[in-house]
Amino acid sequence: MFLLEKHRSLPAYVPGDHEEGEGFIRLNTNESPYPPSPGVAAAVAKEISKLGYYNDPDCTQLRRALAQRYGVAENQVIAANGSDELLYFAFLAFADSGHPIALPDITYGYYDLFAASLGIPLEKIPLREDFTLDYKNYLGIGKTIVFPNPNAPTGYAIPLWQIREIAKSNPQNVLIIDEAYVDFGAESALQLIGECENLLIVRTFSKSRSMAGARIGFGFAQAGLIAELETIRNAVNLYSVSRMAQAAGTAAILEDDYYMDNCRRIVEARDYTTRMLREQGFEVLDSLGNFVFAKPSAMSAAALKAQLRERGILVRHWNQERVRDYLRITIGTMQEMQALDAAIEMIFGRA
Amino acid sequence: MFLLEKHRSLPAYVPGDHEEGEGFIRLNTNESPYPPSPGVAAAVAKEISKLGYYNDPDCTQLRRALAQRYGVAENQVIAANGSDELLYFAFLAFADSGHPIALPDITYGYYDLFAASLGIPLEKIPLREDFTLDYKNYLGIGKTIVFPNPNAPTGYAIPLWQIREIAKSNPQNVLIIDEAYVDFGAESALQLIGECENLLIVRTFSKSRSMAGARIGFGFAQAGLIAELETIRNAVNLYSVSRMAQAAGTAAILEDDYYMDNCRRIVEARDYTTRMLREQGFEVLDSLGNFVFAKPSAMSAAALKAQLRERGILVRHWNQERVRDYLRITIGTMQEMQALDAAIEMIFGRA
Repeated sequence: MFLLEKHRSLPAYVPGDHEEGEGFIRLNTNESPYPPSPGVAAAVAKEISKLGYYNDPDCTQLRRALAQRYGVAENQVIAANGSDELLYFAFLAFADSGHPIALPDITYGYYDLFAASLGIPLEKIPLREDFTLDYKNYLGIGKTIVFPNPNAPTGYAIPLWQIREIAKSNPQNVLIIDEAYVDFGAESALQLIGECENLLIVRTFSKSRSMAGARIGFGFAQAGLIAELETIRNAVNLYSVSRMAQAAGTAAILEDDYYMDNCRRIVEARDYTTRMLREQGFEVLDSLGNFVFAKPSAMSAAALKAQLRERGILVRHWNQERVRDYLRITIGTMQEMQALDAAIEMIFGRA
Repeated sequence: MFLLEKHRSLPAYVPGDHEEGEGFIRLNTNESPYPPSPGVAAAVAKEISKLGYYNDPDCTQLRRALAQRYGVAENQVIAANGSDELLYFAFLAFADSGHPIALPDITYGYYDLFAASLGIPLEKIPLREDFTLDYKNYLGIGKTIVFPNPNAPTGYAIPLWQIREIAKSNPQNVLIIDEAYVDFGAESALQLIGECENLLIVRTFSKSRSMAGARIGFGFAQAGLIAELETIRNAVNLYSVSRMAQAAGTAAILEDDYYMDNCRRIVEARDYTTRMLREQGFEVLDSLGNFVFAKPSAMSAAALKAQLRERGILVRHWNQERVRDYLRITIGTMQEMQALDAAIEMIFGRA
């Protein structure tokens, strides 16, 4: 055993739960059911003959496309190998054993692992009983703060004025808003970066932009905060966004209408799914993400997950306090959600 | 300023020295002058329609191909987003402020940055005056050790029996051998992993396999050591090797003869370059990498670098103690090295 003592409490990695799509309806990892836009294949193909040469460490084209798309300056944008990498950089930059991070008790699971690997203490602030986030719990706490907005797996978002209040009341600390799911109906806090120099917005191509398998994340903040993150990126993995990922991301942004149309379809399918599940007796949170968090009444969540799997449908369940009665169900195409409806009817013995 | 105090001595990232190949002969970053093998384009193209789905976190196909190619078990192989990421994981796993790392004073520059970002003290062990590495300096030092073999920028390798001695004499610590350049003529320490449970071999697709822009690294060690690295990978960035990178790497390994043929061409061009530079009055180290480290006699290294650049040829120079009289010149195609020869003749006023 060579691993340092302090890392031995990290969960051991157990491979094997990865499923190829073949034969399954994948409603378990918040992927998009739609393929990338037409231009992505050609853009990636153009890079292959140049793969021998290092990728642009500045991700110039990708950052430029994002800056134009979102109306910010290029030095207000950072790119990374997935939003996970950007979040890790932010944790490393702004927190350590003497500088804890505050976050909700129910949220994206990877924050725990980033913090554990870096020895960062976490202050977990419970969501309310109904899973909503009380912004007052974050006012003036003097810590780096992170949460997704909308949050996962609840799908609940807080309004921008509350984000502004949190940022303003913690002027010495960075507020990281993880907007992985923002394109499905919530309001982005991007418009606040001008007035909040401590606000970091984290985005991903994995959800609304159909490229979970390409690993492209990005962030917005004032130029000063971006430069601080660039210093960390420079020291840890400057070349992490490959030529193929940069080309794919740039091409996607140039065809962004395609993805925004898909988001509208997913929102429609989410509304359908919410109604359908309620009719099937579920308690369903009003989600602003590409998923719903739903509690079945006719059987336990764990049992329903297993039965859905037997019928070729994958959903997500955590055997964990406060949420073990719920399933997180990704929103796929309307047909996939109708298949879910039919499967649940069968399982509940009503069909 | 939100960056933690301890990170403020990290070098600020200054973008802009990245050069696209257009019009330049790139002998400055140890890239391969040859494109990827024919199967890579098709393998990557097949992934595009599936990019919406997460990549396999286990990199199963890629690790399987590598295991077969190198005659090891699959659980003795780890993959990462470039060897830089794997090296970073190893630093995080085995070293921290109380557990320093020993390495040569003249070596790959990124080790310094990884260590600085993680607060790891470095014990820099000077190479001999002639730039060779004295393995006796590493015997029984009780620290994590890292160096490339062959080393960069010198191109010098130490024999396996010395690596074995170092590993055996530090049984509580990991010995990381960075074999980025091993395919150009040095002997791999892979055959030692059976007897040395503390030996980690790090490899990359960036040099001999023509894919610097694809970001694919891998490592070999006993299954126990690999599992410890997997625990760190799981906590930091489990999905870091994209679908496109996994497909490209797997396809390349299945066509490995192509790359090994290219390595032979590069070795020929290196031998030619070594002779040619010596005829031009350079002192040239006998390199086992895809580069040579050479000291011009007719003018300073810095001046020659600038003059070569004016003639469209990029080479590497460090304005740093012990090495500022040298240039590191990547080995390209025979034609490129002949162009270098002609340019040097012009500059030295002999043509």
